[in-house]
This record gives sequence, structure tokens and C-alpha cells, in this order.
Amino acid sequence: MKWVKVLGGVVGVAALLGLGIILGHFAIPKGADPLAPSVSQDLDLEILETVMGQLDASRIRETLRELSREPHLASSPRDEALVQLLLQRWRDPESGLDSAGTSTYEVLLSFPSQEQPNRVAVVAPTGDILFSCRQSEENLTEEQAGPDVVSPYAAYAPSGTPQGLLVYANWGMEEDFEELQTQGIELKGTIALTRYGGIGRGAKAVNAAKYQVAGVLVYTDPADINDGHSLPNETFPYSWYLPPSGVERGSYYEYFGDPLTPYLPANPSSFRLDPATASGFPPIPTQPIGFEDAKVLLCNLQGTSAPAAWQGALGCDYKLGPGFQPDGAFASTWRPRRSVVFASWGAEEFGLIGSTEFTEEFFSKLQERTVAYINVDISVFANATLRVQGTPPVQSVVFSAAKQIPAPDPSRLSIYDNWIRYFNRSSPVYGLVPRLGSLGAGSDYAPFIHFLGISSMDIAYTYDQSKTSARIYPTYHTAFDTFSYVDKFVDPGFGSHRAVAQTAGNVLLRLSDSLFLPLNVSDYSETLRSFLQAAQQDLGALLEQHSISLGPLVTAVEKFEEASIALGQNISALQKANPNPLQVRMLNDQLMLLERTFLNPRAFPEERYYSHVLWAPRTSSVATFPGLANACSRAMNTSLGSAAWAEVQRQLSIVVAALEGAAATLRPVDDL
Amino acid sequence: MKWVKVLGGVVGVAALLGLGIILGHFAIPKGADPLAPSVSQDLDLEILETVMGQLDASRIRETLRELSREPHLASSPRDEALVQLLLQRWRDPESGLDSAGTSTYEVLLSFPSQEQPNRVAVVAPTGDILFSCRQSEENLTEEQAGPDVVSPYAAYAPSGTPQGLLVYANWGMEEDFEELQTQGIELKGTIALTRYGGIGRGAKAVNAAKYQVAGVLVYTDPADINDGHSLPNETFPYSWYLPPSGVERGSYYEYFGDPLTPYLPANPSSFRLDPATASGFPPIPTQPIGFEDAKVLLCNLQGTSAPAAWQGALGCDYKLGPGFQPDGAFASTWRPRRSVVFASWGAEEFGLIGSTEFTEEFFSKLQERTVAYINVDISVFANATLRVQGTPPVQSVVFSAAKQIPAPDPSRLSIYDNWIRYFNRSSPVYGLVPRLGSLGAGSDYAPFIHFLGISSMDIAYTYDQSKTSARIYPTYHTAFDTFSYVDKFVDPGFGSHRAVAQTAGNVLLRLSDSLFLPLNVSDYSETLRSFLQAAQQDLGALLEQHSISLGPLVTAVEKFEEASIALGQNISALQKANPNPLQVRMLNDQLMLLERTFLNPRAFPEERYYSHVLWAPRTSSVATFPGLANACSRAMNTSLGSAAWAEVQRQLSIVVAALEGAAATLRPVDDL
Repeated sequence: MKWVKVLGGVVGVAALLGLGIILGHFAIPKGADPLAPSVSQDLDLEILETVMGQLDASRIRETLRELSREPHLASSPRDEALVQLLLQRWRDPESGLDSAGTSTYEVLLSFPSQEQPNRVAVVAPTGDILFSCRQSEENLTEEQAGPDVVSPYAAYAPSGTPQGLLVYANWGMEEDFEELQTQGIELKGTIALTRYGGIGRGAKAVNAAKYQVAGVLVYTDPADINDGHSLPNETFPYSWYLPPSGVERGSYYEYFGDPLTPYLPANPSSFRLDPATASGFPPIPTQPIGFEDAKVLLCNLQGTSAPAAWQGALGCDYKLGPGFQPDGAFASTWRPRRSVVFASWGAEEFGLIGSTEFTEEFFSKLQERTVAYINVDISVFANATLRVQGTPPVQSVVFSAAKQIPAPDPSRLSIYDNWIRYFNRSSPVYGLVPRLGSLGAGSDYAPFIHFLGISSMDIAYTYDQSKTSARIYPTYHTAFDTFSYVDKFVDPGFGSHRAVAQTAGNVLLRLSDSLFLPLNVSDYSETLRSFLQAAQQDLGALLEQHSISLGPLVTAVEKFEEASIALGQNISALQKANPNPLQVRMLNDQLMLLERTFLNPRAFPEERYYSHVLWAPRTSSVATFPGLANACSRAMNTSLGSAAWAEVQRQLSIVVAALEGAAATLRPVDDL
Repeated sequence: MKWVKVLGGVVGVAALLGLGIILGHFAIPKGADPLAPSVSQDLDLEILETVMGQLDASRIRETLRELSREPHLASSPRDEALVQLLLQRWRDPESGLDSAGTSTYEVLLSFPSQEQPNRVAVVAPTGDILFSCRQSEENLTEEQAGPDVVSPYAAYAPSGTPQGLLVYANWGMEEDFEELQTQGIELKGTIALTRYGGIGRGAKAVNAAKYQVAGVLVYTDPADINDGHSLPNETFPYSWYLPPSGVERGSYYEYFGDPLTPYLPANPSSFRLDPATASGFPPIPTQPIGFEDAKVLLCNLQGTSAPAAWQGALGCDYKLGPGFQPDGAFASTWRPRRSVVFASWGAEEFGLIGSTEFTEEFFSKLQERTVAYINVDISVFANATLRVQGTPPVQSVVFSAAKQIPAPDPSRLSIYDNWIRYFNRSSPVYGLVPRLGSLGAGSDYAPFIHFLGISSMDIAYTYDQSKTSARIYPTYHTAFDTFSYVDKFVDPGFGSHRAVAQTAGNVLLRLSDSLFLPLNVSDYSETLRSFLQAAQQDLGALLEQHSISLGPLVTAVEKFEEASIALGQNISALQKANPNPLQVRMLNDQLMLLERTFLNPRAFPEERYYSHVLWAPRTSSVATFPGLANACSRAMNTSLGSAAWAEVQRQLSIVVAALEGAAATLRPVDDL
């Protein structure tokens, strides 16, 4: 493995899986008459219908075809070529956008060495090589062996040649290594074989290193990805399942953004951390392999059987080791009320680098102006149902859009009515509704929601979870993740792609052209209420023991509820009353700024970028405010005593202050 | 001394010296017709004149009279009574404001113990008391001996009874103690007598403790406060000079805001630091005394003579010690375009506590909405000239106001023409103009500018610096700081008070009612250019030696200049063109938000509250960007080597990113 410092990591690059949409905050009026009725004109339904009709599945298909024609690893010549292709389209005088430009950053990317390719081998005490893992995937469709297909590797893992006895360590979680120790296995100097899942990629090596493990292998178990199917004729190109030689690549870096310029745009002149001491990288050599190779390793391990929960679908009893058995687009003149920025992010797979650098560079303006961020990354995982992640205020606009669009299957249901069959929940306010997931840090929305506090969503089509337990589409991040795979297995006919484009486009137009922003801020109340209840039920007694009262939190949630209901009533009344443009703008600012009020850059000083007090990472199992949950968890498990309980109280105060600020933002602007 | 935890530190309290004005961001239109021309109506000049005319010196005098009738130490019953008095006036149905309310905080205040009053005495080795300092001031005007006059003390200094040999330590700066050591004086266990000035109050004890000094006395030298005058018949009540027994009180706390709830509103439920471990307090017992007593102590010291620069006006040769010689309101129906919030801060003297807590509690909304903050603390120091501190964008509106108001003296000059005679500078753009000072942390504007990034100003009338070298009006913070002092010596006739009220009121109306905000953002260019030049001249060679280029900073400053000029031209053009209300609003947001773009809460992690990259504290003597200047200074003086130079580069990047963000905010909103 090798470190490469790359000039010209590019934002604005089209990537197979990357399409982001940002909505700007300002109207660009077309008329010259400042007081013409058009200033107050609401959403143009005719335009909405026109655009919906123009979205054409066959053209989307052609576009994806073109974009995926060649591998285009971030910073590669093809990556740059796609930048130019997108620029050309977006600058097209007939069908292009107002303006289009690129931003270039100098970022730390990690590539495998071509001179010294990564190797995984079983070596006898004599030095003889008994078995070697593949160095690239089987060339099944003539697309796996091209010179631009990067070999499997763990980006940002250090280079090295560790040797040691193999152990099987399940997901590579701390409790997994703990279990191995309990079983009497000496971990020092071993190589740990782990399977994808359970925790993030890089965390496996972080955990392993704590137990003095020397190196980590990671494979994809067919139980986790293929519904147990693992034979060549059951997998791609004969089905959508991952072939035995497929290896998932990806970033093993703990954070996102350029590792050397946290919080700063990676311009040539920007301050950089020393790569040797920068944090967040896997501490020991790490390499991903396919389940074909993993099977050879795992099914030949000696030692006691692994626990039942650790067993997979490789067709043998998984042992723990150590060691082996002895033998072993828009209309041309119409313009929306608010500016729309289309962005296509570079280096997402290296850790959301393009989007993060972009937010760092344009931090002020984005935070001042942005109404909402729409993310489309893997637009179609499969063609069963819509799947949306987002903050509560976007729920209503997504529902409005989904009710208006027919599902791509022959059911004649709307996307909404189809969706509710697969993901649903019982809302105290609305009854049974489709269930939105919450936003983690899995795609380019992460800096927008966590760092900037912008209402965000991620939209995709996905599979029926009752029919498959695949945690993602099976060829994900392998060399089999190709156009023909999509064309044949993921979305034949591309109807689901069209459905996603229509949904995102409908949401986009509603956000950009409605007189009042369609962000229903009162939908945050259900989240706050559920967080509060979890805190009361699961932490209340404990907190009481330490004389910490949840009373102020109850009051703050109630204030938020009252303010959000009153704001909604105010908007409803104004909508009937031909409102003054400045009244509209005042309310729109309140709607836009609500999400910002949940940011506190001093809340989690050790969680880089995470400032959102509702959606920061939660390690505790109690589904409540993350800072509170995590602080309680630490206080219970440490011997820090009063300092740890003081931190619990500090975190509680931070949440209360944020909710009070949010309620204040929703109340009339002349009332603090 | 004694720690008292006070319930009900009050914001909204009138204080003799405290009046703050915040401008809200939103119009409150009066008409029902949304498209009536009134929406775009500019500043109402008739209203402006009416209000100017209504401001009446005799009524101001009566008001101050009422407010200063009794001592009203923060949290005292009289303090609470004044809250009610202000509320009553502000709620008056005839002449009051839209709404008025109070915020109550539970903060840590520090008071002297009445049971164990502070004592300073000279004790013989036998234990006999040879001399005692006064425990209160001489009752010269029947106002110094009342039960509500708090005894002299150093707020937030710890209690204790240190004993030791006396040394004279000038200002109590680090170099002063260094000088004493160089002179061979053993400082361990001594009591250091220092004079006010040079550095902040609390810093004297901080520095002393580093040299193992056991206690600190602080006095006011007549050379620094009285132009050398020190005799009773030369001082109050016979002149404006400080009488010999006057003792300056004040906060010795290093930061501002409630010491136990940094960044959080001090509500009863908020998390609090442990007072025993909270930082920023003087580490050793400290007590202020009058120069009458200081003279006895200082003029009897033995040892070598103090350096010439350390000598004062007590009429003797100052020796260093150690030890002694052997013998030794608005019209009722008209409303401004934007909301105006009047605030009167509590506990300013304990470290800007009321205002800081207020900004902590209403952080989100204030930062979202506030156009500008006008501070009036000591409105009249003396009656020679206007004195304004502020950020560059407020210069133009203050000039406009000052040109419209006659000076209170018989000269018939405008306030502006009078002002320019006392404070001026040569501007590359405007030629000779009055000089605005920059905002430190001396009054309640501090959290607004440093923590929230709101364009701020502080307005006062003051003295002719060519005629007196007093660093402030002489009775400042003494028991002689009374109404009759003001009435007789500071501003007989109260013409200067009227002038300040007219200036602040004129600025307030311009900010609240002008169609375009009168914030001239291009005036920041001169500051940036001068900071840049200082960096180039004084640090350029040094930075070059360490391969750090100022090129990106030059580019960023140029971008700011271009964008601010273009924005100004855009506004000028629109002013002639009957602009659309949303165009107006868009530009006003740009003007309002500019100051916010200079905030970076991660820039100075060790400087509590300071986030403004242009106005954070600068310890280096190079008048450039403070983060850069300070980092260079540290890098030159430490043996940290490359880590210290990396911090220089990080600070440079932070400034560049902030300036790039500022330029982006000024550019058209659809252009990142």
C-alpha cells in the first residue's frame, strides 16, 4: 500500500453514485416591475407537471451508460473527463444551467501500489507459500480486468507485511475480540479475519490493534450479502448476487473530509496536518478479500467452534483459530423562485471528501442561504420501494411528492402507497405513514446536516427486506458493480431510476418554487417527544439518583411544540390572506433557520464535524439525545465519578439550550 | 471576602452606566395591502426630525437622577426596584414599547463579607498594628457612608490573610516582576503593591502568583488619574479629581459572563462548573486601596529606587522594598421598519454578566436576526468630544448621524466637525475623517461582537486628551462616582448627555428604518489592507524564512475589496430604480451577515468566547490579524519548533478562509 498526494481532487465530478442537489435561498425574480403580483405567486403547478413529464427513463439510462462507461476513480483522467462532460452539459445554451464551475482541492487520497501489489498468503513455517488469495476479481464480463480497475485494497490503511496465526473475529467489534480472549486465545501478533458489517470498516482495525493484533482481513459473507447463495451459477452474471471473487473496497478512514485539512478547504495554500500524526487512520495493515478466498481460510481454521451468531454461509463450521488445521434538467425560460445548485461530488468513496471540502470552502454562504439539501447517492439499490432518510421537517414535502408519482411497478399504486407497504410507522399525529430513516454519515449529506445544520434528505429506491437479508446490493464496491449489473438485475427498464428522479425532482421544485417553504417544522415534535420519553424511561431513575432533573427538558420540548403549532397556524392563516412579501420572507427564514439552531460547535469537542445535538453519533443503546445518552453511558461505565456526571449535566443543558433556541426561532421574530 | 451565590441576577435592570440597544432584523409592516408602496418606503426623515427634537436634556437629567438615587449593586433590592421602574416606563401605554420583559439568571457574584470586613494593615514583628488602611471612603458628600455603599474589594479574588514584606511592582505586569527579580529581590511570600493600569485587574494577581507573591494591593496613582493632583482641596467635591480616600472597585475575573456557566444561560437548571476549580479567578488574595493609604505604604518602602517609569505623583521617591524603612422612547403610532430591542444590562461590573448570559440564552435568534448592536455604557466621561468604538461597517452611519447633530458646546459646530478635531485619521478613501476605536471587551458589546459576530458600536462623550492624561474620569468606580459629581463636573447642563442620546438615537433610527441597511461593508477594506500591510512589513520576512506565503491572504483581501465595491455599486443602482422588496431584502441580508462570516468558533479554542478572527485579543505588537500575530509571536519565543510554525500556518488559513467566505457573502447570492 502506498500514500499518494493528489493534485486536483475534483468537486463537480460526476460519479456513478453521486448526485447532490442544493437549494439556494433567494428568489431571482424575472420581471422588472417590483410590485407585480408575480412576487407573491405560489408554486407553479403547470411547470411542475411539465418537468415531471420530461423526466424520461430512457434518457436517464443513456446518461448512466455514459457515466459508467469507464472506471473513474477520484483524481483519475476519466474522473476529470467526466467533469468536463458534466460541465459541457450544464453549460449547454439550450438545456444547461445558469452557470457551472468546478472547485479543485489538493487532498490526501490513498491508492494501492502498482509496483508492490497487496498480497495475502498462507505461509508454512518453512517459508513455502501454501495458499494465495486473488489479487483481482475474476474477469466474468470483460469489465473486471481493465487497466483502470483498481485492485482491492483498504484505503488509508498503512502498508506493512504482518505475519501471524489467523483467528476469526466475527465483525471485529470490541466484544468480539473480548470473546476471543475469554476463550483463552492469545491475540498478540495474530491476523484477524473479520466479516463486513456490524461496525464501520476502519473500526475493525482500530479494535484489533487494541488487542495487539498485527493485521486485519475483511471479507463479505454470503450470509450477509447473498441470502446465503455463494455458487458461481447462483451469482452475477446469472443473478444479482455477488460472485465468490468479489471484494468490497472502500475508505477505512474514521472521519470524513480530507484527512489533512479538517474544517478547512483543501486549497493549495491551506494548512495541513502532518500525515504521520493525523488521526483517524486504521492503525495496522488491513486488506479486504472475497468470500471465495475467505472460505479457504475460514473453513481450514482449527480451534473451537465460533459462537452460533458468528457462523455464516460458507458451508463449513467456522472455527476461531488460532492457526489452521494440520492439513489443512429544466425548461429554458421559466425560473424557480429560489436558486438551485446542482452538485456532483468527487471522492465520495474516500470519505465524502469532495462534498466536505466544498462545505468547508463555502461554509459561510451555504450556512446563511441554504434552504435544504437533497442527496441522491445510490439512487437504486433495487426496485421494490422508495426509501428516504431525512430530518423531520422534510417528511411532508417528500410525502406530497410521493403521492403525486406512480410507482414503477405494474401495481398502479402511487409511490407513497407502495412505500407504506414496506416501511411504515404509527405516528401520533398522522396515523400510519411511511417511515423515514435518520441520517448517519453514509453519504455526502453528512457535512450538510452535521457540520452546517441544513435540513437534508437522501432518496433512493431499494429492495423488499422481507425477501432478502442483504445489507446492500450484493456487488456493492466490487468489480462486478457494473452498468450491465444494473441493467439486468437492479432495475431492468430503469423505471425505479425514473421514480427516484421524479421524487427528487418533485421535492426540488416544491422546495425551490413554493411561496412558503414546504418544511413542516412541527414534525420535529414527534422526534423530540420520543427522545424525551426514552430519556425518561431508560435514564430517568438513574438521573434521579444523581439529582439530575429532566424537568427543564420537558419544559423545553413543550415550548417547542407550542411554538411550532402556532407557527403552522400563522402560515395557514397567511396563505389565505394574500400575504405581504416580507411576511412571507420572515416566516421562510424561520423555517429555514430552525435546523441551524440545533447546531452547537462546542457540544462534542471530540467528535470532529458533528455539531447537531439531535443527530450526532450515539453509542448508547438508549434512543434519545445523543450527547445525553453517550454521557450517561460513559458515566455508568467509568470510574471518573463526579466529573462524568457533570458531563451528563452539561450535555443535558446543551440540549435544553438548543431546544429553547429552536422554540425562540419559531416564535414571532419580535418576541425573544 | 466571601462567595455568594445569588438568585436573581437580573437582565433588564437599569444601571447608572448601562444602556444597550439591539436592532432586530425584521420589518413589522403596518398596512394590510401587501403590495402598497409603503413596503419599499425609505427612511422617514420627518420622524427622524421629530424624535431628534423630542430628546430633552432636562428629562434625561431627571431620569439619571432617579436611577442613581441609591446604590444598586447587582442583585440588591434597589437593583430589583430599578428593574420594576424600567418595566413600568417601558410598559406605559402612552409612551412605552411594544413589550418589555425580564430574564432572571442564577449567577455567581462575589461580595465582601460584612462580618469579616477586608483589612489591610502594617504589622510589626511583635504583632502590633503600626498602620491600617481605611475600610471605606471618607464621607465627603453624605453619600459615601450609606449602608448600601459596598466596601472596597476585588470581586472574585479569594479570601485569605496573607502576611509578608511589601514590594512595589508598578503595573503588576510579568516584566515588572521580572525586573524586581533582576534587582535581586526575593518575591516569594511578599505582598505586592501595584497601581491600576497597564493590564487588567485580575492579571496583576495572576502574574504575582507566578512569582509566589502571597497577596496583591492595587491603588490608583494620582499621576494616572488626577493629572498629578492629590490634595483634598484639589479634588472632589472641589474639582472632578479623585479624592485621596477613593478606591476603585471592580471585577478581577479574567473572562466575562457568569463564571460557572460559560456558553450557557445561567438558568437554574443549567450545568455549572465547580466554583473550586473554575478558571479565571485571581489566584491569591487581592485588595484595592486609595492613594491616601498607598502613599503611606509606598513612601515608607526601603530598598533601591524604582525605575523612572514606575514613579508616580505621590510626592516621594518610590522605592522597591522589600519592607519598610526602619521608621518608617418613540412616538405612539409610527413604527420603524425593523424591530428595536432595548436592553439594560445587569451585573456589567462583575464581568458583563447580564449581557453575556442574555446572548447565551438567545444565541440562535440573536445571531439569526440582529442587524446591529449599539452600546452606551458610560455615556459621558467628559464634555469635550464624541468618542466612538465600532467595527468598520458602522463608521458611515455614525458619521451621517454626527453631521446632523449640533455639538453641545457653544462652537456651533456639528458633533462631527467637533469630533474630527480630537480624534482623526487619514483615510485612503475619504481623506481626513474622525477616528473610530476598535472594540475590546470593556463593556456589554463584547459578547455581541466576539461571540455572536454582530456589527457593534460603543458611543460616548469624553475629554480632551491633550488637556488631561487621566485614563478615565477620576472618580470612576469609587464612592465619589455620584450624581452630583456628574452634575457639577462631568456635564453641567447635561448637554453632552443629550448629544450622546441624539447620536445613538439617530444611528438607531437609521439602522431600524432605512430601506437599505446603512452598513458600509466596503469600509472593512481599509482595515484588511492595513492588517495585510502590517503582516507583510513586520512578519513577511520571518514567514518567508519558514516557507509560509502571504500570497493567498493578498488574494483574499483583493477578493473582498472587489466584492464590496461591486455590492456598493449594486445598491446605488437599485436605490435609483424602485427596487423589488425581495431584492432589497437579499442585499440587506448580505450586509447583515458579513460580520458573522468573520466568526470561527474553532479558531481560538483557548480564548473563551472569542471567535471573531479580526478582533480577537492580540498579544503581539504587530497590528495585524490577531491569530496570525499571536501565533508568530509564540513561534518566535518558544522552543516548540515546527508545531508552533504549523499553528502559524493554521491561523493564516483560518483568516484566508474567513475572508474568502466574507467575499462570497458579498457577491451575488447565486454565485458561490
